Amino acid sequence: MPFSDAQNQSAVTTGPVFGSGKRYEPVPGRPGMSIPVRRVSLSNGEHFDLYDTSGPYTDDTAEIDVESGLAPMRTAWEHPEPIDGAATQLVWARAGIVTPEMAYIAAREGVGEELVRDEVARGRAVIPANHKHPESEPMIIGKAFAVKINANIGNSAVTSSISEEVEKMVWAARWGADTLMDLSTGKDIHTTREWILRNSPIPVGTVPIYQALEKVKGDPTALTWEIYRDTVIEQCEQGVDYMTVHAGVLLRYVPLTAKRVTGIVSRGGSIMAAWCLAHHTESFLYTHFVELCEIFRTYDVTFSLGDGLRPGSIADANDEAQFAELRTLGELTKIAKSHGVQVMIEGPGHVPMHKIVENVRLEEELCEEAPFYTLGPLATDIAPAYDHITSAIGAAMIAQAGTAMLCYVTPKEHLGLPNRDDVKTGVITYKIAAHAADLAKGHSRAQERDDALSRARFEFRWNDQFALSLDPDTARSFHDETLPAEPAKTAHFCSMCGPKFCSMRISADVRAYAEEHGLSSAEAIEAGMAHKSAEFARMGGSVYLPLLAKSESART
Amino acid sequence: MPFSDAQNQSAVTTGPVFGSGKRYEPVPGRPGMSIPVRRVSLSNGEHFDLYDTSGPYTDDTAEIDVESGLAPMRTAWEHPEPIDGAATQLVWARAGIVTPEMAYIAAREGVGEELVRDEVARGRAVIPANHKHPESEPMIIGKAFAVKINANIGNSAVTSSISEEVEKMVWAARWGADTLMDLSTGKDIHTTREWILRNSPIPVGTVPIYQALEKVKGDPTALTWEIYRDTVIEQCEQGVDYMTVHAGVLLRYVPLTAKRVTGIVSRGGSIMAAWCLAHHTESFLYTHFVELCEIFRTYDVTFSLGDGLRPGSIADANDEAQFAELRTLGELTKIAKSHGVQVMIEGPGHVPMHKIVENVRLEEELCEEAPFYTLGPLATDIAPAYDHITSAIGAAMIAQAGTAMLCYVTPKEHLGLPNRDDVKTGVITYKIAAHAADLAKGHSRAQERDDALSRARFEFRWNDQFALSLDPDTARSFHDETLPAEPAKTAHFCSMCGPKFCSMRISADVRAYAEEHGLSSAEAIEAGMAHKSAEFARMGGSVYLPLLAKSESART
Repeated sequence: MPFSDAQNQSAVTTGPVFGSGKRYEPVPGRPGMSIPVRRVSLSNGEHFDLYDTSGPYTDDTAEIDVESGLAPMRTAWEHPEPIDGAATQLVWARAGIVTPEMAYIAAREGVGEELVRDEVARGRAVIPANHKHPESEPMIIGKAFAVKINANIGNSAVTSSISEEVEKMVWAARWGADTLMDLSTGKDIHTTREWILRNSPIPVGTVPIYQALEKVKGDPTALTWEIYRDTVIEQCEQGVDYMTVHAGVLLRYVPLTAKRVTGIVSRGGSIMAAWCLAHHTESFLYTHFVELCEIFRTYDVTFSLGDGLRPGSIADANDEAQFAELRTLGELTKIAKSHGVQVMIEGPGHVPMHKIVENVRLEEELCEEAPFYTLGPLATDIAPAYDHITSAIGAAMIAQAGTAMLCYVTPKEHLGLPNRDDVKTGVITYKIAAHAADLAKGHSRAQERDDALSRARFEFRWNDQFALSLDPDTARSFHDETLPAEPAKTAHFCSMCGPKFCSMRISADVRAYAEEHGLSSAEAIEAGMAHKSAEFARMGGSVYLPLLAKSESART
Repeated sequence: MPFSDAQNQSAVTTGPVFGSGKRYEPVPGRPGMSIPVRRVSLSNGEHFDLYDTSGPYTDDTAEIDVESGLAPMRTAWEHPEPIDGAATQLVWARAGIVTPEMAYIAAREGVGEELVRDEVARGRAVIPANHKHPESEPMIIGKAFAVKINANIGNSAVTSSISEEVEKMVWAARWGADTLMDLSTGKDIHTTREWILRNSPIPVGTVPIYQALEKVKGDPTALTWEIYRDTVIEQCEQGVDYMTVHAGVLLRYVPLTAKRVTGIVSRGGSIMAAWCLAHHTESFLYTHFVELCEIFRTYDVTFSLGDGLRPGSIADANDEAQFAELRTLGELTKIAKSHGVQVMIEGPGHVPMHKIVENVRLEEELCEEAPFYTLGPLATDIAPAYDHITSAIGAAMIAQAGTAMLCYVTPKEHLGLPNRDDVKTGVITYKIAAHAADLAKGHSRAQERDDALSRARFEFRWNDQFALSLDPDTARSFHDETLPAEPAKTAHFCSMCGPKFCSMRISADVRAYAEEHGLSSAEAIEAGMAHKSAEFARMGGSVYLPLLAKSESART
């Protein structure tokens, strides 16, 4: 699969993230299996290990050759025998079997294997891992685990080349994307996807109706079940791990959108609505759903049941059309699971904050707690160019309420296709939303990172603060804009407050005083201070004068 | 007050925001009084009026001369007589008097004058309006009104000039800052503030302890009540509208911070903690609080009771130190109000999502619902360089819970001083958080803007979509990156999906079909479609083929 032209030969981004080194930690009881870890080595001699989605690209010792693709790691793993002809994580989990993927995931998430198996068996978590995508590093999507994020890439008829898309994939994974959707709609859909899959360490999702539509030259009325089915099989064979299927857009729901402010805003949903209306027939995705299940089961492809009628504006949130479709997705969830196929459910969209929780509650009720996978939601419509932010607000809240994976939104949403910078901004923004939700949910390891970073901040270990942050490069460059010199990396103040107004220094001084005087509790400190007031006052003149320097905040 | 050097002569930003024109709407029953409005004229002949904080700078017909300052608009207004020697909005409100400021605000907020008066009388809202800042356009901070945002500017010893700070003020107001804090700590504090005040159409706040500390050459132990008092009077005379006073940092609370991950992170709080420890004496801000009230009452300066012990990390959120101080702020609130002085309460900081609501609940309980004014809060510590986003999540949620004003956080938080671009990013991000909260609270006018923008989006009125957005310039430039030609501003697709995949076009087609056939309700549409299925199918081939084009989202 050579690239078609010289422009496509450009390399992808490699090398470790600032302050980090790649490690592989052995998985207990699984000889030869190890999980990737990003280790941040701190200047105080400690280290901090981070969940690592970046694949071999950040491994200094790895040889990267996009022409050859990544090593097919999972091929060597010993998988259980099929059960009643089905070889999916779901049927194995139900049979009480811990697969190699489950063991890998348990080590990666820092949880027990039994939790992983049980959540998959109950359909509350999915492991998107097509047998034909052995290059992928297993991961899990479910509310009992760390909240995940998905990055969308893909060219359109208007712009973008294959090599750009491969680099966007590597780049998204570098900054923490847990999964990737290739939403290409332009030329070379098949080839673009092939390059992405063979080089992707993270699961890849698609929306097969896009390619099917290309096959009928963009006329949705010309779509047929057969064309769609063949497209799905083609993509299953390539190794796509999960597919969005808008099988809940039923003919009778289409009129419910007529009075909306923004009608149907899902591409797939609108294509199917057009088909249903034109033929005045029920959607072939719905009528042929069982056949789809049989295909998916063969490869262990995961359904991502699409919300084709999701609201595209605040005015349309939580309306009849949206929830009617959700009820149908609930029916389809049961059918898919009865065929041993894993399922997650896509969610909105544009939803004001006070209507967010209802979405999760209904999804869990109607879809048997299948993992919820939402696009934002955007908490307001009025900020195009900042929709990564309008949606991060909604995303953090919906994840706190139980959403398992967040589909990122970039600054280009509503305006154009994301470039490489936009992809990074989208990923970092969504890592923030996901992590904020992990903190709020009390995820066992989440706060350790906040604490480590805050300790580094308090102790003026600037490089440690950068290295522990979601984006060390940008944090470092912002700091260097005003205080570029290397000694400033260890200075006990920053440009924000200057050397005389630093609250952290004063705090450190309070603590040093307490420790120096053996005051180990607040009460003891108070008592001690009363006795030693005169001494402290005498010290004060010399202690504080040089120490008064940097504040946490540009305020007060 | 000439600028001190040529560099300082640079002009400020003037001219209307893209797609908008300045208007002045007369205030009923107040001859000669009018409120500023930003009118967006839409391409469909409609218009949309926006609350306008930008002052005369966006008025094409205004003559701007920063050397002369703005016209002292409020000087000409007839104010009521003092009551028992007090001439504050609070005492007038309690006496049943609607002041000119209240009438102006009622027109601006689109509410009745009595609501404004009543909320001020109850202490649930404040109108920061020093008699000596007559250039300001009155505004209100309280949870019954639109959520407001504050922008911080100010130079430090390390960087920034006076003209830069004046431009930052004009720039912040242009993009929607409702109030401004000048947090300068470097040289020329007095002069910088004078330039800002004389040119500021929005209320200006300060933290007087910063200037007091400069007067004692940065040694907090050398501070005295007299030096502080004289600084406060100097700033009152200049026209500062509200002042942060960290009078709740008591000696006995300081030891509570010794075991924190990040100690004391407020500059003012740390200065007072150092003073208390060094002298082993209660804070002079606390012991002289009544005298402060008497000074503030003379000018109608509003207290912003500072949270000197706010948490600086997730680990320290909602701890004993923070809430001990909040209880003291509650006592001080009662004292200030008993002297006829307006009060608002500052809040955190760094707080994980699940601990946010408790902050509002406690503040309202302890401080008699005095307006809460919070800094974010940041929902996680791990994203320096993106703390406008980590904090927008917390800000939107805390405002939904009842916070009246949000202090912005810029991308430079923790790393350096914000430049002009950072100020804009901070303001737009916080307008998003405030607006998302207004929507969630059901604020009467909030959703109108979302609906107007979404209608423009759905109807491919690109320039209207830009003009109605929080940042038309950036939205437009993002769109133009991929489709720069002028005809693309009216094209029925964009670069995101290209001409064949546009869900909005399909939706428009569904609607057009319904309207053409006189189907006015969903039921009628469904019934009609059943009858007209054949006709629609015949149309379909020609209707959809050219129409299949742009999606709301880069996903599915």
